[in-house]
Amino acid sequence: MSLKLIEKHRSFGGEQCKYSHYSEALQCDMTFSIYLPSNKEMKKIPLIWWLSGLTCTDDNFSQKSGFQRLAEKYQVAVMIPDTSPRGDDVADDEAWDLGQGAGFYLNATQDPWAKHYNMYTYIVEELTAIAPTLVPNFSGEESIMGHSMGGHGALVIGMKNAARFKAISAFAPILSPSHVPWGIKAFSAYLGEDKASWKEWDASELVKETGMPPILITQGAQDTFYPEQLEETIFLENARENNQEVSYNKEEGYDHSYFFIATFLDDHFSFHMKYLR
Amino acid sequence: MSLKLIEKHRSFGGEQCKYSHYSEALQCDMTFSIYLPSNKEMKKIPLIWWLSGLTCTDDNFSQKSGFQRLAEKYQVAVMIPDTSPRGDDVADDEAWDLGQGAGFYLNATQDPWAKHYNMYTYIVEELTAIAPTLVPNFSGEESIMGHSMGGHGALVIGMKNAARFKAISAFAPILSPSHVPWGIKAFSAYLGEDKASWKEWDASELVKETGMPPILITQGAQDTFYPEQLEETIFLENARENNQEVSYNKEEGYDHSYFFIATFLDDHFSFHMKYLR
Repeated sequence: MSLKLIEKHRSFGGEQCKYSHYSEALQCDMTFSIYLPSNKEMKKIPLIWWLSGLTCTDDNFSQKSGFQRLAEKYQVAVMIPDTSPRGDDVADDEAWDLGQGAGFYLNATQDPWAKHYNMYTYIVEELTAIAPTLVPNFSGEESIMGHSMGGHGALVIGMKNAARFKAISAFAPILSPSHVPWGIKAFSAYLGEDKASWKEWDASELVKETGMPPILITQGAQDTFYPEQLEETIFLENARENNQEVSYNKEEGYDHSYFFIATFLDDHFSFHMKYLR
Repeated sequence: MSLKLIEKHRSFGGEQCKYSHYSEALQCDMTFSIYLPSNKEMKKIPLIWWLSGLTCTDDNFSQKSGFQRLAEKYQVAVMIPDTSPRGDDVADDEAWDLGQGAGFYLNATQDPWAKHYNMYTYIVEELTAIAPTLVPNFSGEESIMGHSMGGHGALVIGMKNAARFKAISAFAPILSPSHVPWGIKAFSAYLGEDKASWKEWDASELVKETGMPPILITQGAQDTFYPEQLEETIFLENARENNQEVSYNKEEGYDHSYFFIATFLDDHFSFHMKYLR
């Protein structure tokens, strides 16, 4: 493992860093960002994972959400992976909702995707081994949040590793990928047409299991993607039948943008910190 | 005057809007952004102008600074112009520090720049007539802030209109443009070689006059542009000789980026609100 620090900016007293490395799981060069709070009091520092949405890199959340103010306020590190494998040698699609920028945080089984599109293993094993080496005084406590496709990713990764992640939250997540156009397109390509294989990557299925972490979801009521791609009915019904703790908030006037995320980010950090401390 | 609303996002309770219009002063189509706080208490709303730096548009501050949280907290509108005239018919230069994206907030007198490069008149007359039509319950009180080239712009426009702007602040401003490479290059092109004509666009000269608004400046100590382009000695000496109120803060570890701006933006908003209320 060879990490290269390619950017470092002082931000709200802490450090916003960007690294490049070769990923074994993805078989390509990758970049990720991480924020380290100042930790002036030398306490144990927990870690929140942020997963971004379609078309994003690690830069979108780093540059547009203003999260650093909150990470410093709550003294928590934040790890921000890219959203897919990258590079000229990596399979891609002309559409913005498949291929590079659209990894869907799963392990693909179908050609031409299977070689590189293993974002689940990349995050849950490879970056998971790297993160503790970068967070001085890491407490070992982790939680996960994300936006849109990354909200799907946070829910799926958080629930598939329920003992590890203390809390899950999502902004405008794809809650039932097996039932909406974005998810059907991606799962058909990455996983094939056998829908049985889709279930382990669908939050609405995973929420039927017991022992899941507490979940907070915020959805903009004027999000143009909401009715077709982000509808909550199946997920919330399955959660309710399973007595799963879910707080679902619809916010009037808000859209799908980082202006929406920035507005409600303190609520999400507060939620996570209840379970990380 | 025909304004077209091209974007509107709910943000921290208020509205982040983007307009396009034809500018008479610049003889081209322009866009600008404006944030309107929620004004739930129906108070009079003051207006802060933000001027961006080299290569920026109105999007950089809107998307990267997180200022909307503060504008809503303090219930102030924020007007964000672009940094130069724009378009295929507008003179430009291959370098990023001259031409489009580098208007320097002055009125050019030299060809090929004189026709379009009138950012001073655009802001002080044309946008000044537009802004009150967009801010419901406008209090009539204004102040101005900016970054780098836009810090130069805020100081120059603020001091040339000292009766109008209640306060001026700047992040890493070009304080003595007549003496540094960015300023010498731009002033030579836009104003010609007669340095007498540069004085009215140089903050270090304007600060010699009496009756200027209070000024706050924040500079990152690790800003790579600082020693060559942003040095403060001449400006501060001229301010001191004139008993001009200037608070100049150098912040250890910070660079020239929006991570730096975001960190200290609350200090600047607090400073402005002392004089706007």
